[in-house]
Amino acid sequence: MKKNSHLQTIEWKNNKIRIIDQTRLPKGLVYLDIDNLRDLWLAIRELKVRGAPALGAAAALGVYLGSKNLKTKSREVFNKELFRIADYLASSRPTARNLFWGIERMCGVAEKFKGRSVEEIKRLLFKEAQAVIKEDKVTCRKIGLWGARLIKDNSTVLTICNAGILATIDYGTALGVLYRCKEEGKRLKVYACETRPLLQGARLTTWELQNKGIDVTLICDNMAASLMQQGKIDLVITGADRIAVNGDTANKIGTLGLAILCRYHKIPFYIAAPSSTFDLSIKSGRGILIEQRKPEEVTSLFSKITIAPKGVRVFNPAFDVTPNNLISAIITEKGIIRPSFRANIRKIISSVQRRAYSG
Amino acid sequence: MKKNSHLQTIEWKNNKIRIIDQTRLPKGLVYLDIDNLRDLWLAIRELKVRGAPALGAAAALGVYLGSKNLKTKSREVFNKELFRIADYLASSRPTARNLFWGIERMCGVAEKFKGRSVEEIKRLLFKEAQAVIKEDKVTCRKIGLWGARLIKDNSTVLTICNAGILATIDYGTALGVLYRCKEEGKRLKVYACETRPLLQGARLTTWELQNKGIDVTLICDNMAASLMQQGKIDLVITGADRIAVNGDTANKIGTLGLAILCRYHKIPFYIAAPSSTFDLSIKSGRGILIEQRKPEEVTSLFSKITIAPKGVRVFNPAFDVTPNNLISAIITEKGIIRPSFRANIRKIISSVQRRAYSG
Repeated sequence: MKKNSHLQTIEWKNNKIRIIDQTRLPKGLVYLDIDNLRDLWLAIRELKVRGAPALGAAAALGVYLGSKNLKTKSREVFNKELFRIADYLASSRPTARNLFWGIERMCGVAEKFKGRSVEEIKRLLFKEAQAVIKEDKVTCRKIGLWGARLIKDNSTVLTICNAGILATIDYGTALGVLYRCKEEGKRLKVYACETRPLLQGARLTTWELQNKGIDVTLICDNMAASLMQQGKIDLVITGADRIAVNGDTANKIGTLGLAILCRYHKIPFYIAAPSSTFDLSIKSGRGILIEQRKPEEVTSLFSKITIAPKGVRVFNPAFDVTPNNLISAIITEKGIIRPSFRANIRKIISSVQRRAYSG
Repeated sequence: MKKNSHLQTIEWKNNKIRIIDQTRLPKGLVYLDIDNLRDLWLAIRELKVRGAPALGAAAALGVYLGSKNLKTKSREVFNKELFRIADYLASSRPTARNLFWGIERMCGVAEKFKGRSVEEIKRLLFKEAQAVIKEDKVTCRKIGLWGARLIKDNSTVLTICNAGILATIDYGTALGVLYRCKEEGKRLKVYACETRPLLQGARLTTWELQNKGIDVTLICDNMAASLMQQGKIDLVITGADRIAVNGDTANKIGTLGLAILCRYHKIPFYIAAPSSTFDLSIKSGRGILIEQRKPEEVTSLFSKITIAPKGVRVFNPAFDVTPNNLISAIITEKGIIRPSFRANIRKIISSVQRRAYSG
């Protein structure tokens, strides 16, 4: 890839959903054109497209794709089928809030305009999906603006997984903050945790940061404590998959450990996420469903090399929950939310989200 | 391998050093016969034989192997060459204290009997190397006995790397404690951290525990915090590579992070190690040299699959240092050492080690 050429993780192109196949990175930048729901469901399940905000867009485009392919002229049949499409997409992965948020937005449009013709509703659904994409671009840049206020020149930042371009449409949440810092002329050094088992840090974050010309060093997840002990980390910033109303945050497995290490070493720990990641229906992290993934992700590498004895039992949760008391601040497009989160999240994130679909 | 068949990690056999090639596990149990120092040096550097106590034995056998191959009848030339052999072996890996301890024991014998004939000294060196091996078997079983006192029936234990049969001669330190528990009829559940980058936990510890019939579950290193948060871990126990006189302990990278997680979750954190792992010449962990290994260990898997972009910078320390205040107790063959370590280590570990060779 050419340095600084514009990447878009997901878009509607040639009447299909075009995604960057993230399982092929960093070896090759390969695009995948998706024209049916089953392929989209699999692309989500297999992490060809991943990252909470990108999943919001995938869900929105997916609902449109599914509706577009419906042949009926009956509004009633159409609406019934639309909810079937929504249920199907909602079954792809359980944790990221944005996936359900994307579906809910689309179902909300169908609900609002249910008196219109099927063709008209399809047109409005397309418009809504495009709005989701357009808004994400703006939202991430706002997150970047707010977050950059928290980061001084010459900082060394540690992050896990990928909360960058590839997790959003084209900018990033946690990494968006770093891109904004760079645009402001701040010098940064970044440590990227490789993020086992699927190595989004090693494969995606280092690749993005290299392309953006940001100084990045790859570490194994278990090396973060040693860096902090040596005073080499000024702050940790990560994305989020679902944030409860009290600020408890589900994010990639390993995030909780980093937050605890930050507390021990008195290092700030920041979350960066759009308001679509908040789930105001959930009181605390205990209410967040954590996806358990298959053992083979841990026992073999990309189904190619086996690294553990046959039949060994495996625990493979895709996410963990960081309790609110370990989080220094949550950076959103609406501003920086600081503790006490219970009060401040309600203040900053609009407390009413109309739900035509409840995933 | 047959269940419960007797494994020996390293031994003198057919006039050669026979080791289990640990880089081939768990795929195959392959033995390697080594008849020259260069091959032994490489086997140590490439972790074909690894684990602090096993390295002590490798060093002792290595000094004998090197001396056996010397052609001179002159005691002066022989002694000079012996120190050259010692220096060479000492240059293989820097952190594990036991490697140097093994060399020192052998040089101590040569020094003590320097008036004898070369043939006689060689015979005494062979005897000493065999003693190192024999003593390790006894030592590990004593560690097991002491350690088992700390573990209740029905405990769930988390460990990192491999401190078992494959890290010693035939029993283990941290895993030896678990084996002793099993012999006593205690029921255990074990979580093994995979231990990036070289996956000793995934490849070796799960294999050993499976063979011993102990219930083992493999996790990625970044999943330990989540298990602890859910109250699933009763204690953590690991081996050690070098312990300073104040109790600060160098062990496999990732150990420090686990110790901090234990502190946060109020879970006991134990070290199990023979007295040969203590370095009474070092006041604190700051004096311990940490081996930095090559980037390719992180960026590719077994030199087969590349998992990061070309040219990415990597930080790859093989060990970290856990400060004494995070350690609940150190289990040795001489007893359980509890804080305050500064006083109690001197009491239990003999404070004077004669050093004919200083590595």
